[in-house]
Amino acid sequence: MADKMTTKIRLLVLFNLFNYAMPSASTPATIGPADADTKEELHVLAQHKIDSLTILMLLGLLMLTILTIWLFKHKRLRFLHESGLSLIYGMIVGAVIKYTASNKCDSSPYVRLNGTAYYTAPNPPAAVYLKLPQSFNSSNLKEIKYDLWGEVSEDTIHCTGSLVRAVHAFSTKVTFDPEFFFNVLLPFIIFEAGYSMKRRHFFKNLGAIMAYAFIGTTISCVVVGGIMYGLTRFMKDIVKEFTLNDCFWFGAIISATDPVTILSIFSDLRADVDLFAFIFGESVLNDAVAIVLSSSVDSYRLKSNQEGFNANAFFLSIGNFAKIFLGAFGIGSALGCVNALISKFTKIRDFPLLETALLFLMSYMSFQACEAAELTGIVGILFCGITQAHYTYNNLSEESKHRTKQLFELMNFLAENFVFLYIGVSIFTFQYQYWHAGFIFASVFSIIVARFCNIYPLSLLLNIGRKNKIKTSFMHMMMFSGLRGAIAYALSIRNTATTAKKLMVSSTMFIVLITVILCGGLTTPMLQWLQIRVGVDEDVEMKNIKESRERDTEQIEQTPPKKKYDKAWLVSLWHNFDIKFMKPLLTNSTPNLMETLHPCCMPLSRLLTTEEQMTNPCVHIEADSDTDMIIDHRELSIGESISTVSHGATQDTDKHDITEDSLIDDNILGDLGHGQPMRLQINVPGPLGENV
Amino acid sequence: MADKMTTKIRLLVLFNLFNYAMPSASTPATIGPADADTKEELHVLAQHKIDSLTILMLLGLLMLTILTIWLFKHKRLRFLHESGLSLIYGMIVGAVIKYTASNKCDSSPYVRLNGTAYYTAPNPPAAVYLKLPQSFNSSNLKEIKYDLWGEVSEDTIHCTGSLVRAVHAFSTKVTFDPEFFFNVLLPFIIFEAGYSMKRRHFFKNLGAIMAYAFIGTTISCVVVGGIMYGLTRFMKDIVKEFTLNDCFWFGAIISATDPVTILSIFSDLRADVDLFAFIFGESVLNDAVAIVLSSSVDSYRLKSNQEGFNANAFFLSIGNFAKIFLGAFGIGSALGCVNALISKFTKIRDFPLLETALLFLMSYMSFQACEAAELTGIVGILFCGITQAHYTYNNLSEESKHRTKQLFELMNFLAENFVFLYIGVSIFTFQYQYWHAGFIFASVFSIIVARFCNIYPLSLLLNIGRKNKIKTSFMHMMMFSGLRGAIAYALSIRNTATTAKKLMVSSTMFIVLITVILCGGLTTPMLQWLQIRVGVDEDVEMKNIKESRERDTEQIEQTPPKKKYDKAWLVSLWHNFDIKFMKPLLTNSTPNLMETLHPCCMPLSRLLTTEEQMTNPCVHIEADSDTDMIIDHRELSIGESISTVSHGATQDTDKHDITEDSLIDDNILGDLGHGQPMRLQINVPGPLGENV
Repeated sequence: MADKMTTKIRLLVLFNLFNYAMPSASTPATIGPADADTKEELHVLAQHKIDSLTILMLLGLLMLTILTIWLFKHKRLRFLHESGLSLIYGMIVGAVIKYTASNKCDSSPYVRLNGTAYYTAPNPPAAVYLKLPQSFNSSNLKEIKYDLWGEVSEDTIHCTGSLVRAVHAFSTKVTFDPEFFFNVLLPFIIFEAGYSMKRRHFFKNLGAIMAYAFIGTTISCVVVGGIMYGLTRFMKDIVKEFTLNDCFWFGAIISATDPVTILSIFSDLRADVDLFAFIFGESVLNDAVAIVLSSSVDSYRLKSNQEGFNANAFFLSIGNFAKIFLGAFGIGSALGCVNALISKFTKIRDFPLLETALLFLMSYMSFQACEAAELTGIVGILFCGITQAHYTYNNLSEESKHRTKQLFELMNFLAENFVFLYIGVSIFTFQYQYWHAGFIFASVFSIIVARFCNIYPLSLLLNIGRKNKIKTSFMHMMMFSGLRGAIAYALSIRNTATTAKKLMVSSTMFIVLITVILCGGLTTPMLQWLQIRVGVDEDVEMKNIKESRERDTEQIEQTPPKKKYDKAWLVSLWHNFDIKFMKPLLTNSTPNLMETLHPCCMPLSRLLTTEEQMTNPCVHIEADSDTDMIIDHRELSIGESISTVSHGATQDTDKHDITEDSLIDDNILGDLGHGQPMRLQINVPGPLGENV
Repeated sequence: MADKMTTKIRLLVLFNLFNYAMPSASTPATIGPADADTKEELHVLAQHKIDSLTILMLLGLLMLTILTIWLFKHKRLRFLHESGLSLIYGMIVGAVIKYTASNKCDSSPYVRLNGTAYYTAPNPPAAVYLKLPQSFNSSNLKEIKYDLWGEVSEDTIHCTGSLVRAVHAFSTKVTFDPEFFFNVLLPFIIFEAGYSMKRRHFFKNLGAIMAYAFIGTTISCVVVGGIMYGLTRFMKDIVKEFTLNDCFWFGAIISATDPVTILSIFSDLRADVDLFAFIFGESVLNDAVAIVLSSSVDSYRLKSNQEGFNANAFFLSIGNFAKIFLGAFGIGSALGCVNALISKFTKIRDFPLLETALLFLMSYMSFQACEAAELTGIVGILFCGITQAHYTYNNLSEESKHRTKQLFELMNFLAENFVFLYIGVSIFTFQYQYWHAGFIFASVFSIIVARFCNIYPLSLLLNIGRKNKIKTSFMHMMMFSGLRGAIAYALSIRNTATTAKKLMVSSTMFIVLITVILCGGLTTPMLQWLQIRVGVDEDVEMKNIKESRERDTEQIEQTPPKKKYDKAWLVSLWHNFDIKFMKPLLTNSTPNLMETLHPCCMPLSRLLTTEEQMTNPCVHIEADSDTDMIIDHRELSIGESISTVSHGATQDTDKHDITEDSLIDDNILGDLGHGQPMRLQINVPGPLGENV
């Protein structure tokens, strides 16, 4: 194998000209041991200054954005959303940087190895090693490693002037760094989504959301891939760059819709809660689906490797998809549960600072743990966020509850705006992009068609099984809400090795730009035009639901429900398990494990029940995160509440057959799910901000 | 000049052997255009995984630390402080990484350029350029840039095995990165110090603190430098590496004492407030002094450049010192004031999230603005923090007040612990360190002597002018509190170009280790042994002060104070300006500018007075940050309050001569400063955490 390689990659790189350039400024006249570090120091100092300038510029932009957001909110302007605003500010600065830095150069000391090179490997080596003498007059060699920085353009070779140099270094710095995005900014955004999720509406519509996220995104990926493959066949100049695999990869990355813009408008306007849940749920889950899909396509390519369709590799990819999704789900939830257990069984709540720090770190850890295990961190941290909100939140001290909410809200806000600014700036400064009008047109066309094929057929299909039908206006709105944002962009620039990938970068940029500014700006008019309810008051909503519930339960009392196994039985089964085992185990809620578990488990139950749970039967009931998050315990346990109502008082034991007499579908879940009328009006003290 | 260089640096690097290594795993059998990106992708993936593993490990350690801290707090153990704990945990992991990664290697694709090299420049070039053909059969060349990564050790050349490879990459990753420390972690720590500073005690003892910080640190720097220069003359093996300049540089960096450990113990134990102020003030300011000193020494070296003592360069360095300090002070305070103005004149307080984000960004901006202007960010952000707390805080909405306090507290906590973990880990993994027992012994000896020469003479000198003498036990405690921490460490590893610098790294590590673990652990016994008061209750303290104040004012009423200009007149002058101009201008406090300014400025005053200030005369008085921060308005305006008491009711106008009849020294400031007895007992709701 290794021999084969050596023959294949003829390595005849001949270097015949060297020159060693020095920085022209501040060069000492004499060179002695005491000055040995001067040049390196100057290099480090210059680097530090450029870092500072970069950060400074981004901070300034971010502040400008915040002030403009405030002005817009204050004046109640909605024609441009904050993410669009960030994008535009970023672009302006990016353009300035690009066009002032046209005469690129870099005059830190370097060795230039010119010459004829017979180097046939498709990519440059990842590192270069130089052997140099240890010191002035020593024969020991030291070996210096150089890491791949990237390709430099032709006009890099000769220039002077420290300003130009600084600007050049600057323009390479402000390029969007996908590692920073994926490792730092994205986790905050997604965790906040999970932690502050209105779980009631999310779980109520879970079936539909899963359908849109999993099936819909796959449809979108396939449709985009197919159309792009078809259309690129007609583009003579780029056709040979695109394999079918490339097209599907593009389909995968461009299918990640962005929750940020639409949702904050919905949130501001208090638009219809079900529509909110659809769009929120779809966009959050579909980011993860798109990430997993694109890496599945990648691994399929690596496996099948030019051998045409390979059934084995195809199924491996599907298996891989399932593994990645379930693995990440498992890790995320498990770490959330571990945190819940720690906060339950230690008295760490006496020190809110430590408690908050622990929650923060554990959540971030779920992300990195998934990434390290080669799963997808975004799914991990999303479910960790949900678990933390569902269990750990209940164990926190009052102070930590506020702290964590406010902290994550702020982080999310900063991260979101930063991302859009960053995208804006790097649209001009990112090096690896080829613009091709035909390709961009094809991609815009394909995503519109794909969105259409995703939303309408699925909604119609879902409506067959739903009592609470998805309205046509909702479908239109969902069609319209297919904004592409940070995830799509970051995925596209993560890999820019081939021409095909570089073409994809530019069209992704274009699509992000168009959808965020155009669709984002037109959301409010669109809502009005489609006559979708805005200004929905959760409390009033709850009252209506409660009333209709009361009417319905009266009916039910007259006509006992038919036993029927429907699609929600799994959800209900889970809910029972949650109430009987998970909540008592992981939180200080009542009833405790000693009451819910079979008496034979007594010693274990006793061990796992805190004093607080035993002595204080009503503890935390009021502050339960479900109440706080506007979710209701009985939401999903219709069977339970109905049977309580219809058959009178029942015991807590022996309800394993509870699913049998449940009557759950989305509609009834929505209308009946409120056993305790007033509970939903308990609000935690302190406003929770306006950007949830 | 350039020609001279070319002849001096004979560049005859001859490469006569090349080999191109490929990753052995997952190499595709055929190489076509579709696979062109495979290798690069694998490289990116591997990189991402290593990043994740690194972060994961640090997160895990941080959580372990938090849980151990909780356990220690819970069990009331104090023999080891949290920073010591982080350090130890970090070291354990660092040792494991180091000794499992002994067989270093790196097998990403690379070009190795071996051969005899006549390369006489003292440092390797900062970059290497390779020219390669654009593609398989093209004659166009593309130029690839490679950045300096560092020196690799001899055993790097041949090895396989992905685990070993990962571990190697890992051990280079977890090395403390001074840029990350200076740009990300340090700002949080210092800002929090300024923002949560108990300004009353700080300003009361400002004279003494400034003396310790400025004069004391300079003494320390000179003493350490002198002793090290003397002692290294006896170390034959390293003597020629050390110039006098190197020694002073070491003196500067090792003089940065660390506030973290001692202060949190003091805070927990509620030790004597004056001693707290001395140690806090000294350690916060002296970090900045040390940074500025070390860069002054550097610039002195660059200027004087081997020409022996150069008076011009020496005075330039002193001028530089003043410029850096005052410039940073100016930028930091100015940005704080800008934020105060924004929060006063806009209604951004209707949106606490935006308000908090703005405060956060503006504060961080003060740091980066100073760094970009080549001043010292640490001074900038410290004074920005103080300004924010003094002015902006008063304009914030109630929610933002909580948010900002909790946010910065958490950030500070995480940053502090992370720093010590990081130091612990990198003690083993940092490459550029030479250990030399004699040098370490000399440096430990010199810092003890230097600390002695700093504290005792200065304290005795200060006591001449102070009524409230610095007790001998306080001096001993301050002598003992000279812990070295993150700043010293980060400064030392920022520059490791010469052997001298590498020796300094190892002794700084050693000193940090010893002082944090030993002195940190022994703080509580030391406080007991020196019989320093602990468990001081601020409120009780205030009551006592109030009573003694009342006694004193009675005396004053009998014997009117002599007019005397003492050292605090500047402070008093400033305070008057603050009350009459700055506070009314920058906050919504009363009296407003229309009342305090001369009537001729009426149009301007009117413009700068908000409606809130005009209509609501008592607004914000209770929530003023001075109250909140346990500081008192009248603290420094003794003249004013005394005159109010002694001469009966006075008008607000025409008090420009107020300083003339003031009777201010540290003692009276402390004892008399409380015009309104009950104000200090107003506490903001919600605990402020235990780590202030």
